[in-house]
Amino acid sequence: QSILESSLKKWKEEGKRGIWIYLPTHMSHLVPICCSNGFDFHFAKKGSVVLKQWLPETLSRLPHGPTHQVGVGCMVTKGNGEMLVVQELTGPAARYKLWKMPTGLLDPGENINDAAVRELKEETGLDAKLYKILTFRQAHSGGDRGSDLFFVCWMKLIDENQEWTKQEEEIADIRWMPIEEFTQQELWQKSPVYQEMNDAMIRAIETDQGGMSEETHELGFRPGSNTIYIPSKM
Amino acid sequence: QSILESSLKKWKEEGKRGIWIYLPTHMSHLVPICCSNGFDFHFAKKGSVVLKQWLPETLSRLPHGPTHQVGVGCMVTKGNGEMLVVQELTGPAARYKLWKMPTGLLDPGENINDAAVRELKEETGLDAKLYKILTFRQAHSGGDRGSDLFFVCWMKLIDENQEWTKQEEEIADIRWMPIEEFTQQELWQKSPVYQEMNDAMIRAIETDQGGMSEETHELGFRPGSNTIYIPSKM
Repeated sequence: QSILESSLKKWKEEGKRGIWIYLPTHMSHLVPICCSNGFDFHFAKKGSVVLKQWLPETLSRLPHGPTHQVGVGCMVTKGNGEMLVVQELTGPAARYKLWKMPTGLLDPGENINDAAVRELKEETGLDAKLYKILTFRQAHSGGDRGSDLFFVCWMKLIDENQEWTKQEEEIADIRWMPIEEFTQQELWQKSPVYQEMNDAMIRAIETDQGGMSEETHELGFRPGSNTIYIPSKM
Repeated sequence: QSILESSLKKWKEEGKRGIWIYLPTHMSHLVPICCSNGFDFHFAKKGSVVLKQWLPETLSRLPHGPTHQVGVGCMVTKGNGEMLVVQELTGPAARYKLWKMPTGLLDPGENINDAAVRELKEETGLDAKLYKILTFRQAHSGGDRGSDLFFVCWMKLIDENQEWTKQEEEIADIRWMPIEEFTQQELWQKSPVYQEMNDAMIRAIETDQGGMSEETHELGFRPGSNTIYIPSKM
């Protein structure tokens, strides 16, 4: 308590502006001491919390922490116009007996394309590569769930003759379905937002135009690389 | 302490699986009590923290919280092939005297297109509308900053004859620049990832192909709407 108070006094005298304190879960007894000395929460995840305080008498210019979770949907097609669909064992889609594309959330630090490959493999056992990102959706759940970006990933199987293996804990059933049968399911027909996304998927399959391809390149001016998604070069 | 212990016992007997506790900052004295009873951090933002615990003896199936912050860059063009660029007062780009597009982070709950319109207005005073999202980048800073999605938004001015007004706190200078002069700056030339993004921008301007348009539609099966980004219909 007194150490924090004297540090804050010193930091203010030195003209410091934003102060961040990182605490692992086993030091959570220090959280109330920080908060009673003017700190507020910034960000937390399993294993740690970060608190922050803006010292000047001006409006805080500290950025907020992560606001979005990111999800992927795997649109896997075969040359005959069929699409891979699954029924889930639990959750809202299961209640509707909805046939949907395999979906999942990015793990922390994971790329969109890697997550799509991983989720498809986990749910169906199938090996595929990202061909193009076709469309995406932004939703705001509000409260502490934050916002959501969902990317529709058009995937191509490494080998069209692979057999699937169902993930027993999550997946009730798997099949190939003509894409029109998929989009004509009652729940989608009731939903303007999903109808538009489904139409964009059909247009992409019919024309092979639109969508964004993945490329990974070096940053150049410092070490490291970034994955970018850019419209396919004509 | 004893209330929490007996509640946990009851929840386990009832077969509850995931437990979430939401605490506003002024109740931060309860954080250590939760952590010493098996809770861990899930998510936090200014004003509150959320803790979680998975009760069964199995692997936790609780989703992680938000992992990404989302940024926008505003590519504003004029009919003569010029692009709006700014120099910042502080930060890495200022050290390089880099001319860049206006950029900024989404506020919590904000749409990509709204953030692009707001950031451009804040930094330059100019009113514009989103035309298309042209390309995007995913970066992983690691640690507690999480990951980053950055969307390049092609914007069109509401009125091409508007005058800009510089945001005094952040912007050192504003000008119109031929897009080739923008992309030929030394820092971009050193960076394969930015070269590819810049090339995609030039290709989009030259051909007006590619990119994703914004549409907002009703969800239909429950109240609310989502914003989606889909390839422009030909």
